[in-house]
Amino acid sequence: MNKIGIGVIGCGTVGSGLIRNLPKANALIGERLGVQLEIKSIAVRNSAKNRDPLPITPVEDWKKVISDPAVQIVVELVGGTQDAFLIAEATLKAKKPLVTANKALLAERGQELFPLAQKSATPIYFEASVAGGIPVLKGLREGLVANQLLGLHGIINGTSNYILSRMAEAGSDFATALQQAKDLGYAEADDKLDVDGIDAAHKAAILCLLAYGFLPKFSEIPVEGIRKIESQDVGFARQLGYVIKLLAMIRPVGSDQIEVRVAPTLLPARHPMASVHGAFNAVGLIGNLSGPVQFTGRGAGPDATSSALLADLAEAAKNVSDRSPGPLLQNAARKARLISPSDSVGRFYVRIEVEDRPGVLAQVAGIFGAEKIGISSVLQPEGHGAGSVPLIFLLESALLSSLHRAVASIAKLPNTRAPATILRVEDLT
Amino acid sequence: MNKIGIGVIGCGTVGSGLIRNLPKANALIGERLGVQLEIKSIAVRNSAKNRDPLPITPVEDWKKVISDPAVQIVVELVGGTQDAFLIAEATLKAKKPLVTANKALLAERGQELFPLAQKSATPIYFEASVAGGIPVLKGLREGLVANQLLGLHGIINGTSNYILSRMAEAGSDFATALQQAKDLGYAEADDKLDVDGIDAAHKAAILCLLAYGFLPKFSEIPVEGIRKIESQDVGFARQLGYVIKLLAMIRPVGSDQIEVRVAPTLLPARHPMASVHGAFNAVGLIGNLSGPVQFTGRGAGPDATSSALLADLAEAAKNVSDRSPGPLLQNAARKARLISPSDSVGRFYVRIEVEDRPGVLAQVAGIFGAEKIGISSVLQPEGHGAGSVPLIFLLESALLSSLHRAVASIAKLPNTRAPATILRVEDLT
Repeated sequence: MNKIGIGVIGCGTVGSGLIRNLPKANALIGERLGVQLEIKSIAVRNSAKNRDPLPITPVEDWKKVISDPAVQIVVELVGGTQDAFLIAEATLKAKKPLVTANKALLAERGQELFPLAQKSATPIYFEASVAGGIPVLKGLREGLVANQLLGLHGIINGTSNYILSRMAEAGSDFATALQQAKDLGYAEADDKLDVDGIDAAHKAAILCLLAYGFLPKFSEIPVEGIRKIESQDVGFARQLGYVIKLLAMIRPVGSDQIEVRVAPTLLPARHPMASVHGAFNAVGLIGNLSGPVQFTGRGAGPDATSSALLADLAEAAKNVSDRSPGPLLQNAARKARLISPSDSVGRFYVRIEVEDRPGVLAQVAGIFGAEKIGISSVLQPEGHGAGSVPLIFLLESALLSSLHRAVASIAKLPNTRAPATILRVEDLT
Repeated sequence: MNKIGIGVIGCGTVGSGLIRNLPKANALIGERLGVQLEIKSIAVRNSAKNRDPLPITPVEDWKKVISDPAVQIVVELVGGTQDAFLIAEATLKAKKPLVTANKALLAERGQELFPLAQKSATPIYFEASVAGGIPVLKGLREGLVANQLLGLHGIINGTSNYILSRMAEAGSDFATALQQAKDLGYAEADDKLDVDGIDAAHKAAILCLLAYGFLPKFSEIPVEGIRKIESQDVGFARQLGYVIKLLAMIRPVGSDQIEVRVAPTLLPARHPMASVHGAFNAVGLIGNLSGPVQFTGRGAGPDATSSALLADLAEAAKNVSDRSPGPLLQNAARKARLISPSDSVGRFYVRIEVEDRPGVLAQVAGIFGAEKIGISSVLQPEGHGAGSVPLIFLLESALLSSLHRAVASIAKLPNTRAPATILRVEDLT
């Protein structure tokens, strides 16, 4: 049985979970792969802090972990993109395989790290960075290796999905559902990363890299969060046969462009992605051979993340043991570019508050017509006083820039009361 | 770029699909793994038969494919368990890795083949044998390698799922839905393998091997098909908040027993497995770390099967190229045994036709009580004439042998009209 030395840098919730889960997993990994993981060095920010007992005495200087000759694989679990970058860079320069769960690091600084990994002929393993306990990266890289991917879509932020599920099931408004998510520990005090779609966009960038060999510039990915979703939108969507999910979409457009976006999106209620409830995640894709495939599971939590980290460690250890180079993302430098957001084509849900007067519906519909945007259905609930009513349109496929022109014209009508709410619609196959 | 020679034995729908899809996939496999697949030899039963042009002239004697020195990996696609066994045996004895989509072969004769593979130190690749385009075996073997599996469940026969979906959505009866499945090419003229659960049981046996290192004796797996499902059961299940699916269940019981079964089963309507519609398949599992994970996709068809065969071929070719032994299922001989079916514990749906007379419900409920079987809900629809009404019970967890005793007592009541319909209920998490 070949023993492979591991260094762990960072010992917060995820790191402690990994250390706690390693002994039992090691027995399975030994039985299944014939290798054993041995923690040889651990770095923590503050070694005086009270914590569960560690298997070895930790150090405070992470450089000592990387330079330790007994450490053959380094696990970076400090989070963020500053120290984490320095750790990743030093690990790759030392030609030690890197295992990380850090999606922000890879999405925002992968442009520097992946070329370095190639130059050093040292792989980065990052199954844990997307959708925690769901083995989606290995599925893409190996199980679907023979497929051209016609597109990917995912519910890849559990906090947002919990909030949207509460809004759909309990009729809560956004603020109440957000507070519940915080009370249950699903949402951080600083909710921006989760609720505003940034975390989902980090993962979307990584999925794009895996699927298309192209890591988009993070700041260029259009991202919308779920703060603008109102209970009435959840209700109207249901009446139309849809549910609202925070969806990441990645798809090739033409021969050299790729669309990557994160936005609240209406999905058909009977699609398997619509029954991904609570804090669960799902990633769907369409392969030219496999057809539609969906992976569903827990996206976060120390145990689910351990499952992915340990699978990566097992693979890395097996490769070290076999002197195999491991997965090097050979096509990471592929030429591609993001489409301009205004060139995006899709279906939309538009809610407009108007004064309840004769002729308003005709005016609004006329503006969509002038922009050549077809209307596939309309909801106009009975007015509830105050003279204002919502008009809900489900539109046929349209160019985003045409939609924006139409909505700007509608906003100028004398009877329009408030800015339109615009949501994406995806009729996933 | 390392070129690896492939031999293909059998050129029906699946074999032709593989040959058609190989060139395009080869470009991706080359880019991603640095190996290329080259078909060096093809065997067909009748070389005079009209068929799409093949890349090379086929032979009729499959032994020539295996003995061809240019062939480094053999793909067996003849189906059945007779010739296929001889082909598999000869391939392993020649120490050439075997790729197969043949679930019947592995489930019924794996007891002979897997030990032979170990003895010859030659792997069998069989991703295509379970759930076609869904990379579930690689997910289990690699992505979830660090998990103890607390159980697996799956919808792994597309034909049955199509029939049950039609019954649920269109209100068809079984015979009409079966005929539709035949008209669409989802069901064979001989529908027994699909509709009576045998195909699903083949795949369940293979999942059990992957998950628990134990291949059960096929004839000992309890299998029920869907012929007995009536439209009214589909309707009553819906009223109770459930859908009926042909479900394979695999779970450990105690330290050395495993329960494997295939049976029509009520699942909660809001569970992601319940929204697996039409001919789609899904495999769910619960890992001790990952928590619940579900894989959904196309289970059959030449393209979906090609996706899995090509992934296996790519992996096999990479291993040949790297001189790596490949996955040898080291624990295939693990000591375990199937539980006796009567020891199975679970929840049940029971429909009984009774005469519409006062006191009958009390008598039936009394018999369940005497067997200490709790009743979690009861449906008694208004009678529709003829003096007979259905009584539907959703029971608490019970031993199957207790349930059988209760049902036998109920059958003897003077007011019972017809044998009870008994279905499993699984409240999947």
